[in-house]
Amino acid sequence: MIVAMQEKATEEQIDAVIAALVESGVEVHRTTGEMQTILAAVGMPGVMHVHRISSPYKLAGRSFRPEGTVIEFRNGVTVGGKQVVAMGGPCSVENRDQIFETARRVKGAGGAFLRGGAFKPRSSPYAFQGMGIPGLELMREAAEAHGLLVVSEVMEISQIEPMAPYVDLFQVGARNMQNFNLLRELGLIRKPILLKRGIAATIEEMLLSSEYILSGGNYEVILCERGIRTYETATRNTMDISAIPIVKKLSHLPIIADPSHGTGRRDLVAPMARAAVAAGADGIIVEVHPNADKAASDAAQTLYPDQFDTLMGELRLIATAVGRSF
Amino acid sequence: MIVAMQEKATEEQIDAVIAALVESGVEVHRTTGEMQTILAAVGMPGVMHVHRISSPYKLAGRSFRPEGTVIEFRNGVTVGGKQVVAMGGPCSVENRDQIFETARRVKGAGGAFLRGGAFKPRSSPYAFQGMGIPGLELMREAAEAHGLLVVSEVMEISQIEPMAPYVDLFQVGARNMQNFNLLRELGLIRKPILLKRGIAATIEEMLLSSEYILSGGNYEVILCERGIRTYETATRNTMDISAIPIVKKLSHLPIIADPSHGTGRRDLVAPMARAAVAAGADGIIVEVHPNADKAASDAAQTLYPDQFDTLMGELRLIATAVGRSF
Amino acid sequence: MIVAMQEKATEEQIDAVIAALVESGVEVHRTTGEMQTILAAVGMPGVMHVHRISSPYKLAGRSFRPEGTVIEFRNGVTVGGKQVVAMGGPCSVENRDQIFETARRVKGAGGAFLRGGAFKPRSSPYAFQGMGIPGLELMREAAEAHGLLVVSEVMEISQIEPMAPYVDLFQVGARNMQNFNLLRELGLIRKPILLKRGIAATIEEMLLSSEYILSGGNYEVILCERGIRTYETATRNTMDISAIPIVKKLSHLPIIADPSHGTGRRDLVAPMARAAVAAGADGIIVEVHPNADKAASDAAQTLYPDQFDTLMGELRLIATAVGRSF
Amino acid sequence: MIVAMQEKATEEQIDAVIAALVESGVEVHRTTGEMQTILAAVGMPGVMHVHRISSPYKLAGRSFRPEGTVIEFRNGVTVGGKQVVAMGGPCSVENRDQIFETARRVKGAGGAFLRGGAFKPRSSPYAFQGMGIPGLELMREAAEAHGLLVVSEVMEISQIEPMAPYVDLFQVGARNMQNFNLLRELGLIRKPILLKRGIAATIEEMLLSSEYILSGGNYEVILCERGIRTYETATRNTMDISAIPIVKKLSHLPIIADPSHGTGRRDLVAPMARAAVAAGADGIIVEVHPNADKAASDAAQTLYPDQFDTLMGELRLIATAVGRSF
Repeated sequence: MIVAMQEKATEEQIDAVIAALVESGVEVHRTTGEMQTILAAVGMPGVMHVHRISSPYKLAGRSFRPEGTVIEFRNGVTVGGKQVVAMGGPCSVENRDQIFETARRVKGAGGAFLRGGAFKPRSSPYAFQGMGIPGLELMREAAEAHGLLVVSEVMEISQIEPMAPYVDLFQVGARNMQNFNLLRELGLIRKPILLKRGIAATIEEMLLSSEYILSGGNYEVILCERGIRTYETATRNTMDISAIPIVKKLSHLPIIADPSHGTGRRDLVAPMARAAVAAGADGIIVEVHPNADKAASDAAQTLYPDQFDTLMGELRLIATAVGRSF
Repeated sequence: MIVAMQEKATEEQIDAVIAALVESGVEVHRTTGEMQTILAAVGMPGVMHVHRISSPYKLAGRSFRPEGTVIEFRNGVTVGGKQVVAMGGPCSVENRDQIFETARRVKGAGGAFLRGGAFKPRSSPYAFQGMGIPGLELMREAAEAHGLLVVSEVMEISQIEPMAPYVDLFQVGARNMQNFNLLRELGLIRKPILLKRGIAATIEEMLLSSEYILSGGNYEVILCERGIRTYETATRNTMDISAIPIVKKLSHLPIIADPSHGTGRRDLVAPMARAAVAAGADGIIVEVHPNADKAASDAAQTLYPDQFDTLMGELRLIATAVGRSF
Repeated sequence: MIVAMQEKATEEQIDAVIAALVESGVEVHRTTGEMQTILAAVGMPGVMHVHRISSPYKLAGRSFRPEGTVIEFRNGVTVGGKQVVAMGGPCSVENRDQIFETARRVKGAGGAFLRGGAFKPRSSPYAFQGMGIPGLELMREAAEAHGLLVVSEVMEISQIEPMAPYVDLFQVGARNMQNFNLLRELGLIRKPILLKRGIAATIEEMLLSSEYILSGGNYEVILCERGIRTYETATRNTMDISAIPIVKKLSHLPIIADPSHGTGRRDLVAPMARAAVAAGADGIIVEVHPNADKAASDAAQTLYPDQFDTLMGELRLIATAVGRSF
Repeated sequence: MIVAMQEKATEEQIDAVIAALVESGVEVHRTTGEMQTILAAVGMPGVMHVHRISSPYKLAGRSFRPEGTVIEFRNGVTVGGKQVVAMGGPCSVENRDQIFETARRVKGAGGAFLRGGAFKPRSSPYAFQGMGIPGLELMREAAEAHGLLVVSEVMEISQIEPMAPYVDLFQVGARNMQNFNLLRELGLIRKPILLKRGIAATIEEMLLSSEYILSGGNYEVILCERGIRTYETATRNTMDISAIPIVKKLSHLPIIADPSHGTGRRDLVAPMARAAVAAGADGIIVEVHPNADKAASDAAQTLYPDQFDTLMGELRLIATAVGRSF
């Protein structure tokens, strides 16, 4: 029999359980980890195997900060508090006009962050791989012009330093959720990280990956539900909305939702964004492009600016209904 | 090459495509089904396989009734219209007190249907299999006493007739979504059917199963998203909220959500019910029991009546935010 | 804390555990089922949730018949012993010539069973639903002419009696693996049952479904791995070859493999049949049709008779390599 | 309508198809990529959407090297030819005795490669992360002493250079299958790469990832099936044996199987290794440890040396049955 004590179990409680087990004739092995005490009872006659459910993350666990983490950005925008935030922008930065026009519309609709890829992880080596640093320069300029913050994906350790001056929030993509060396380096910097759930990652694995960042001393991590891989082919991924309330319960970290990648379909972005906020998400990240159908990547799931406007209006109502502001 | 003609393709259009294909030196096989014409071009030199995407359901398709189906029950309650409905009750009917007390609380909170199992599909032959007809008698009495409608699961053809006097809405469970003989029989009766999505069914398969009922002449089918099986173990199933807007687009049938089975966890029922309504669901079906933790089945996912009250209040706000009433 | 006692736990052992638990100040709820005693310790201070792993099937468990079940058919063919058997035939019986020619080739290649569908479960109500009893008459005639046994699918309770004179082995399809009423009725007859794994069923659920048949007194059940639903689209299903050694360990029932449905691709039938036998399968069931590409159903996964001949030769070598005969 | 021409389609064939389409009154957009010509017919009246199935990898495709790739190592061992190879060793290198004893037993049983982790990707930051370069020094010494080749995992670009002197085959783990920057760097070196399938990667995605390496000029890539994530919990992963014959058909690259990670259970390693070889695998990689139950990681799935001996004997028989040598 394996007994997993609660994280807050006192020494008296642990001793009482050990005593009870020893009493019944078994040998007890005690393992007190950083987080939890596990007791293994060997040789208890007649008892079958019992599975332990433990919480292997420590700093990411709710009990570490029961009140929840609120991340404040330099312009006063907060993520994880009462406010629900919106991040919008193209899959890839393509040129000056595109990113300035997008920034204008994202800000106009009430968005707080400009998103856009400069380094792009692509399944095929022959697909467009992004503009790199020049793309980030354009993003930063466009964001400054409209009072937005910048979020963009980092794919590799060597990109952290050159990217730092341009981004307010480093995004770790789904494919890198378990690139542990990258996570560890991101734990050493002092900028917030947006950590996306891997395409087949469990919620526990996502929290463990955040632990790599937190354990380096960087406590400003925002999680993101962006759909998991299932047998259903009607959508690109199946968005696991239940991950939102589960993370809220297990962890103190904020969590946002990405209905663009979560569904892969423009017509589903709005209903799923509403669902995410209704379930308690701290924000959404959405692909928006002034000429969505001609986007260099992810065209099928990208909103036109007018659709983004409408969505922001809907989310304002939902946020109010669940006691949040937008 | 396989060419799937549109459902409404005219003879002239079909002939034009055939002519073009023959012109290029291939042999064309034509298959005109009830719904659609499929052309197979064999031997076209240099052409690789091309996959067809067709819509194999006809009566369930949105184009059959673009305005949507609204099902009206004998007491005026409607499903599929502006109103969002709630169905509540225990997993299994256990005794008179339990079902009367539940009915009182469901009605008090604003519910429209009393749910409860009398014939129970259980993975194990040794688990409680339900009270049968006596359970339905109790449900009917309790429902009448409180002005509720009755929904209960039918597992087999031979149960249809004896159950009919007691239920307003026949439920087909997830495990029977592809019990085609049962579906065909339910197509011949004149009572609405609640068809739950199979645990690993695609949305297309759910619509095809509804087609079995519709093609028998029974057009009153309500679909239900109740979670699909994925690798994630934090929840009993992963609720596919995106199925709701997808069904709304592909079909005219109403769709409701079951966050109790969809998650298997009491603490997730409320956020997922809110998410479902925010995404456009026509209602929810939830397990409620006056003594939830002692329920004979599904205890872990069953709400206490007070929790159901709170949830109804939240849903009222969300419904309003998306332009529905409750 | 939940403690699941071993199936063979004695009263003394159970009492000792209860005493130890009570000693430590908790309230103990005891549930003694037909198979196992479960103890729930409520209120034990400081103890987190502990999950039980139990074996909820009893008659299907290996310990019920450690030596394994061998099913002997009327002509001396056995399933579950040293012999590896092959079942071959078309997806659907279509006409006299087709089924006689198939029977001739299946027998010639060394097959023991003629398979073929007369009642067909089809996702669409508009697809070919099978020839019914006249199809079974043809199968029986063809099988008799060539010394083969007959296996065919039963979809509904009302078909059991009319089918019985024609079949030696009743097949329960994947979609009906949890049609518990059908399973229960099949437990009351005295003919072997071939129970196919549901498309999203766990191995445990398959064994629980077999328990429905066994608990009625019919101990002659053969299980069948036929692929599960995953995200991979290169194949129709993902064949879970590991289910074969797992079932051999957990249960005494024979298990065969269906590489036709398991893959949905003709070119994968042979390698997957070899893999199944190498992993310990007691037989295979394969779709064979004299004119495979023109088959009324499942054409893409059906072997030509010559391919079946070649496969039988390969399986003979693999069977020998793992100490079996063919 | 989208028409995907075969890779080898001639200009005449493409023109003939375009002519036929234009004839029927549509506008044709032609995209000739590096690999394939795609024709998009816009405005063809009455034709519904048709999905293209293309082969987006070029260098990894079978047609690039129809005879198959055979990789020859410095001691004459080949992978991808007639020979079936075995790689064995501990999950992690722990100390000198452990790795020398393992090497002795792996060689004695007929293995060709010593496997062992020095840099370990671990879900938790608190788990053992490997010995690093000192571990590789031990592995190299032990391998030399027994005439084995060395395979070990590289997690990051900065590890490539320091690891190079010690390994004969660089392993890219499942979590890094889409770490595109790492893959690109590995395309620039001249050592063979063992690329493991991601836990939720499709076969196509695995081939695309290999294309990143091949397109850099390193053609020596060995693929590895190691189980995918599904709903089944009886095994750690579900081993997709069908990936082996599919890769053999689509690509010229060798493919081996990892039944240790593929199942996560010691008792399933042997049957699944047999299945893999029966299905056409070019080799297996297996965890072996002189004191398997005390292994620092992956203990539950690690073989004892005696079990490895027995397995090698079984595989010799299976390899012969499918016309290979061992």
